[in-house]
Amino acid sequence: VELLLSVDRTSSAPRHRQIYDALRSSILSGRLRAGDRIPATRALAVQLAISRSTVSEAYDQLQAEGYIQAKLGSGTYVAGNLPEDGLQVVDPKKLHVPHRGKPVQLSSWGRQAAQLPPSPTSDFQYDFRAHGIARDSFCWGAWRAAVERATHGSRISLLSYPSAAGHLALRVAIASHVARYRAVSCTPDEVVIVNGSLQGLNLLSHLLLDSGQRAAVEDPGYPKARIALETRGLQVTRVPVDAEGLIVEQLDRAGEHRLVMVTASHQDPTGTTMSLGRRLALLEVSERTGCLIVEDDYDSEFRYEGRPVESLQGLDRNGLVVYAGTFSKSVLPGLRMGFLVLPVRLVSAFVAAKSMWDGGTPVLEQAVMAEFMQSGDFERHIRRMRRLYRERRDALVAALAEGFGSRALVGVRHGGLNVLVELDVHREELEIVRRAAVVGVGLHSASSYYSTPPSRPTFLMGFAALSSDQIGVGIEKLARALA
Amino acid sequence: VELLLSVDRTSSAPRHRQIYDALRSSILSGRLRAGDRIPATRALAVQLAISRSTVSEAYDQLQAEGYIQAKLGSGTYVAGNLPEDGLQVVDPKKLHVPHRGKPVQLSSWGRQAAQLPPSPTSDFQYDFRAHGIARDSFCWGAWRAAVERATHGSRISLLSYPSAAGHLALRVAIASHVARYRAVSCTPDEVVIVNGSLQGLNLLSHLLLDSGQRAAVEDPGYPKARIALETRGLQVTRVPVDAEGLIVEQLDRAGEHRLVMVTASHQDPTGTTMSLGRRLALLEVSERTGCLIVEDDYDSEFRYEGRPVESLQGLDRNGLVVYAGTFSKSVLPGLRMGFLVLPVRLVSAFVAAKSMWDGGTPVLEQAVMAEFMQSGDFERHIRRMRRLYRERRDALVAALAEGFGSRALVGVRHGGLNVLVELDVHREELEIVRRAAVVGVGLHSASSYYSTPPSRPTFLMGFAALSSDQIGVGIEKLARALA
Repeated sequence: VELLLSVDRTSSAPRHRQIYDALRSSILSGRLRAGDRIPATRALAVQLAISRSTVSEAYDQLQAEGYIQAKLGSGTYVAGNLPEDGLQVVDPKKLHVPHRGKPVQLSSWGRQAAQLPPSPTSDFQYDFRAHGIARDSFCWGAWRAAVERATHGSRISLLSYPSAAGHLALRVAIASHVARYRAVSCTPDEVVIVNGSLQGLNLLSHLLLDSGQRAAVEDPGYPKARIALETRGLQVTRVPVDAEGLIVEQLDRAGEHRLVMVTASHQDPTGTTMSLGRRLALLEVSERTGCLIVEDDYDSEFRYEGRPVESLQGLDRNGLVVYAGTFSKSVLPGLRMGFLVLPVRLVSAFVAAKSMWDGGTPVLEQAVMAEFMQSGDFERHIRRMRRLYRERRDALVAALAEGFGSRALVGVRHGGLNVLVELDVHREELEIVRRAAVVGVGLHSASSYYSTPPSRPTFLMGFAALSSDQIGVGIEKLARALA
Repeated sequence: VELLLSVDRTSSAPRHRQIYDALRSSILSGRLRAGDRIPATRALAVQLAISRSTVSEAYDQLQAEGYIQAKLGSGTYVAGNLPEDGLQVVDPKKLHVPHRGKPVQLSSWGRQAAQLPPSPTSDFQYDFRAHGIARDSFCWGAWRAAVERATHGSRISLLSYPSAAGHLALRVAIASHVARYRAVSCTPDEVVIVNGSLQGLNLLSHLLLDSGQRAAVEDPGYPKARIALETRGLQVTRVPVDAEGLIVEQLDRAGEHRLVMVTASHQDPTGTTMSLGRRLALLEVSERTGCLIVEDDYDSEFRYEGRPVESLQGLDRNGLVVYAGTFSKSVLPGLRMGFLVLPVRLVSAFVAAKSMWDGGTPVLEQAVMAEFMQSGDFERHIRRMRRLYRERRDALVAALAEGFGSRALVGVRHGGLNVLVELDVHREELEIVRRAAVVGVGLHSASSYYSTPPSRPTFLMGFAALSSDQIGVGIEKLARALA
């Protein structure tokens, strides 16, 4: 079978996805049939002039989904029973009948949600966009062992509807972890498991704020959090951030708010730490006005210099701070698992809200995380990743100094998985992104974080997902492309 | 160590939970110390005069959470490293400082959510309340094999943020299954994975309806769906149901609605099937008014007599039916996993809404379900459960005839995991529930399903979680208690 595949280098679709899509549609259309042999990854990589790992990623996905299978000592073949075989009972004509009837109208929330740009999916050889973790260094052995233990240990829980608060063993492990490492003051009863911290924020905002009420976020700050609040019809104040974190005086001057979201340990995206003075001032505003503080502690596991900063929650004496954590950066983004530590008086209302919204978080994944934490593998993994990410951060800073000298201004960098980088290269931001893409370098403009974008081109550069070597080569290519 | 445990038979807390709580607090308070031996399940069951399986359930939970451990050939002991050990760094005084500051106010939605009664948790030896599956007959071997395959196969997906639409392999398997067994017309691209069908309904209502707009539900009908719509501030019409299902004429007379939810295959709770005439009439109303139909097909896998009914979705030519399915009854409630089949023109907006709400469903559990379906184990499990549940249904009908004769009126019973039973025993409903509880029989009044409760005491009786023998003994006890 001759494979007529090509990769569109100008397309925004990642290359492994292009290969996956091309092979899958060849199989579904019948051009490739059950038992047909498909090329080895090495041969296809040479044919398409792309990296072998890109081809492997596409093949892995096709195999995981049952389209292709490897035969030991022989090669790779189209599978005999395709996942779509069952679909043939549907009359294909029916699928193409144009819809009659009135168009479906969306709500005002729905119209805003539907207009949001989809997450960027293009695939770069040197991807400095600030998302993702080290893909080559996860402790799959320990993970697999945790899955095996949980598979047995979760049987009773799987037979019942889940607890809306979350799997108790996981809440116990989290309470212990955040008490020890983040000085969060809590019992397991105050921990609630959520499907990512974004769900936590959404549920809190529904639970506490009626449409038209006021909430506040940092400026610059995480766009998805602000958008989640704005699309609900809340009035959202964007409060400026300086080197000490959120300028509390400006929050206070803007009037009373029902909720304020802060990234106190490691401001997203500037990387600054909120000073103790500002923390106390924020807690005072909260006590005086009843404003709930949501402390999004999204990446504090990764601090490379200086004393670990305690959580804002640990300073609170008013029961007005919610601490939000996530496993997306410390473990695996695909878990889609986070947690809140709630003031005790909010726990039962929040659990009722979670129960009404989706009935609770799936159990199996929670049981696996509980095992992963109980065994100590979670802490070991974080320690290992901290060293690795620190090396990668150093590689990025060194490469930027090498490639750009004083024309690259690197922001605060004592922690996290990314840094803000301002480039003084006399080119428009969009042109920089385009030129970078041509040489295989992915850049993410930081402008969506700001109400008034910085005057110079500024990028939020992630270093977690690339090796130190890749970082060096990528920045060198970028510097040449912008010279 | 002498264990001073007792079980409160009047408490609403299930007995296994009482034992779990008592042992856990003994351990946490230090009354039981690491290495202390705890009684064998048989001994404790005799001491407390309860069933040994209740004690076992508590022990299993304690073991899963790391509080106790079994030593081979020796007995059961308090574990050396307690999950809570890390908590000791928190100053215990701090946890008990009363909160200062203003009280936290809830939104109007939050106040309603917080007032909902919690799910019933009491534990009966003969539990006929209509929830739960057969706890003794799950195919753990096949499940474990699916987990093992998925643990390897999901690696790439776990390293990335999830697709908000869901894991592709699972969507492919679902599309094939619903096409084959439910005549649902769809491609995998129209399938979206949700955290339970309740989340699906919540997201649809947010996506499509602004507060104050009109939605309709069946009367009697599933209370949680109605409450989810009402608490959002929607105007909810309760449309009566007769032997042919939703009375479409009454829906139409009540004005235009933006959304109507129906259980067409097996009406919840009456068990009737919507007639073809009514289906066509409902589709006509939908075409004329643009009303979206949400077809909640929550238990159609379990039909015992007659031809399987096709889905309403398969009859739709207007792109105005959403088909909702769940794995809570067909597989495991703890999965908390369901799916929607959406009209193609709603897919991208719904996926954007799901992405904005929680960023997608956790990957591992989806990968496991995909493996479970691809291997054929899902279908085998359903076939096996169908036989088992049919036997249990027959046992319930026979026991009711034996115990109550013509004084028990059993509703439609060709499918599902529960039946409506009207008891003509000249006692108040609440008194029946209380007398039943005294003899260990759990009953769930159906009145929360109705806008006007039935004139005679009516119960939604589940038969899935009890063996045929237990069903016989339970109904005999009930009949004697009410004689």
